[in-house]
Amino acid sequence: MGSKRTARRRFLKEGAALAGLAVGVPSASGQTLGSVRAERPTDLTVARSLMAYGERARFVKTSRFVYEDAWDLHTDPNGKDAHTVLDQQLGIITPAPLHYIQSHGNPPPDIDPTQHRLMIHGMVDRPLVFTMDELMRFPAVSRIHYIECIGNAPNPRAKTLEAMHGMISCSEWNGVLLSVLLKEAGVRSGASWIMAEGADATKHGKSVPMGKVMQDVLVAYGQNGEPVRPHQGYPLRLVVPGFEGKYHVKWLRGIKVVDQPYMTYWEQSSYIKGENHQGAYSPAQGPKSVITFPSAGQRLPSRGFYTVKGFAWSGGGAVRRVEVSTDGGRTWNDAHLPEQPLRIALTRFEFPWTWNGGEAVLQSRCTDDVGRVQPSAADHARFWGSHKAPHGNPIQPWRVTNEGHVLNAL
Amino acid sequence: MGSKRTARRRFLKEGAALAGLAVGVPSASGQTLGSVRAERPTDLTVARSLMAYGERARFVKTSRFVYEDAWDLHTDPNGKDAHTVLDQQLGIITPAPLHYIQSHGNPPPDIDPTQHRLMIHGMVDRPLVFTMDELMRFPAVSRIHYIECIGNAPNPRAKTLEAMHGMISCSEWNGVLLSVLLKEAGVRSGASWIMAEGADATKHGKSVPMGKVMQDVLVAYGQNGEPVRPHQGYPLRLVVPGFEGKYHVKWLRGIKVVDQPYMTYWEQSSYIKGENHQGAYSPAQGPKSVITFPSAGQRLPSRGFYTVKGFAWSGGGAVRRVEVSTDGGRTWNDAHLPEQPLRIALTRFEFPWTWNGGEAVLQSRCTDDVGRVQPSAADHARFWGSHKAPHGNPIQPWRVTNEGHVLNAL
Repeated sequence: MGSKRTARRRFLKEGAALAGLAVGVPSASGQTLGSVRAERPTDLTVARSLMAYGERARFVKTSRFVYEDAWDLHTDPNGKDAHTVLDQQLGIITPAPLHYIQSHGNPPPDIDPTQHRLMIHGMVDRPLVFTMDELMRFPAVSRIHYIECIGNAPNPRAKTLEAMHGMISCSEWNGVLLSVLLKEAGVRSGASWIMAEGADATKHGKSVPMGKVMQDVLVAYGQNGEPVRPHQGYPLRLVVPGFEGKYHVKWLRGIKVVDQPYMTYWEQSSYIKGENHQGAYSPAQGPKSVITFPSAGQRLPSRGFYTVKGFAWSGGGAVRRVEVSTDGGRTWNDAHLPEQPLRIALTRFEFPWTWNGGEAVLQSRCTDDVGRVQPSAADHARFWGSHKAPHGNPIQPWRVTNEGHVLNAL
Repeated sequence: MGSKRTARRRFLKEGAALAGLAVGVPSASGQTLGSVRAERPTDLTVARSLMAYGERARFVKTSRFVYEDAWDLHTDPNGKDAHTVLDQQLGIITPAPLHYIQSHGNPPPDIDPTQHRLMIHGMVDRPLVFTMDELMRFPAVSRIHYIECIGNAPNPRAKTLEAMHGMISCSEWNGVLLSVLLKEAGVRSGASWIMAEGADATKHGKSVPMGKVMQDVLVAYGQNGEPVRPHQGYPLRLVVPGFEGKYHVKWLRGIKVVDQPYMTYWEQSSYIKGENHQGAYSPAQGPKSVITFPSAGQRLPSRGFYTVKGFAWSGGGAVRRVEVSTDGGRTWNDAHLPEQPLRIALTRFEFPWTWNGGEAVLQSRCTDDVGRVQPSAADHARFWGSHKAPHGNPIQPWRVTNEGHVLNAL
């Protein structure tokens, strides 16, 4: 432990000298992002072919659902937003090509990683500018976290799983802890927030309290083993585990250290409605869960045995428990959690169920490891009033008709 | 707990009635693999576009290395085999399009999942045939495991990281435990092995001892959240965690329960050389590790501080410890393991190092949680003699020249 601490101090000391300097790293060759690679030896016969980057089987055609005029489905009227298809997701990792997109209609900026910079400025001792190569030379962390849009929620007017629950995805994010970069810059006393800014045309910015920043906020350059995809913020995305999707600023180019929240354009205009300002700086999301099989849009072919499957998650930590009711909420039983739940990540649950052919209402309820319990839609509405609530985590009931059709029961 | 056990019994009882019967599941629409989905509501404007399945940024061009005549690099002379590029992998998940391929030149068979069947036969009470839909209705497990080819090993004649260490990849595998399927079929007394057969042209088959099968062997239909890729065995792959890659039979179509190992063509011909039969039914791989930065084929641009990075793994369990030496093995220090090591999965390690501009030899050494330690190349050769050893897990040393070039130091 002692040697680790020494090494750590050494890194921070020498790293400070490194950051912001031209250290002679040759600019990326185009092939790589941030590696320092010489030309390859020529004594190998290396061929690039279709095998070089594999494709899916021709029978696999799962795609995101792209909504064009779906204001009433909690997506933005100006933009083309894409929802992931949760009932087709095998396991907790969302394939990067299927990660949900909510960009207010912004196309992703076309950023050359050799030209991209991250600036840390504001209330710091040493303003710093990092190249991608420099960021990738720091110690890295790799964490599996979900990201969910604030608009992801049950809705009486929507008819499918992906319309209501398609704005959540889960990835292995790889990058540098923002706390490490801030230590290099030296945070001045009195600084209590950061303002993160993206390089997109609309200059999306978000304020994040310093307590959260120092806990687990990540400057991510990797997603599921490869560079972050363009719609997810290539080449850099802020990952604020457990906070709403809007905090996870894409195409990250600036971190300004400040002493108050900034109330940027996007913080004022799009996410605060009426008198409900709760949504502006809201704490951890969840706990939440949704049954993905059977779910609205599907049909059960026959009575008999089924394995009910779904996902649960919480912005407050790990999932501790998921209960399932198949009788409209009269009785609840513990679902099986096949894997050890990860902190702030999708968690699978399963529940054995025999459909007798009659009408049934299925729902799931998540409890997280800080003891919070997912509310019913009625309780949720009672607490938040008629305004749009900041967290869309009420229980989603599905109704199975006696023909086996599965419908939104709200 | 009691209710879970009851549910489990109920599933197994009713599941037995289900398996092997036509249960009226409509054949997959082509869009989905195994889901039971009705036509979508028509009141949504749903458009499919380029956003429907995302692409990489145009600056990201990482691809597998495809070897065509690389017998001397431990790949097969008949086939085109593809190696993953470990130093470009961010995090422990290998992107599916970049997973290594070692198929003895077999192209992947073009299997229609609606026509594919898995047969369980041999020494069982009830021979069973499963469709993909039926398999996907079973309780599932989702586990992050690496797969590594037996040929992945340090080699004095090879010059790059990916030539020697590119036949390992790590994925989230999703599917049914084979033990669950075997309980449905009822294993007869005296049965002590299975023989797994693939649907490829060469009828790849492998024998696996029953003890391992009942422990954690998986019939996988999912890889990193989507169906297994064609080169990885679409639509079904046997995953035998910690065993050599050859055991992970692709395009799985049959499980024959038997009372002895089968010594199939591929078990006799390709993996047993001379008098060394150890490779035929060898136990868990590893422990093993390799430094990916800096590694052979790269160049350090200048003296100064670097974060040495790499991966460690063990077929015997989780990584407990990784040590790094930067002075040719005279001294070793503990590396930092940024994430909690997962069982039989890639594990990242990092080590802070200041290069003073002189010659240096860097190496890493893994200890797993059953106490096994990765051997030096010399110890490995001494133990196994001159024959090709069954496990290619000796320590890989890299030599940094005083110009910063990184070379294979074997």
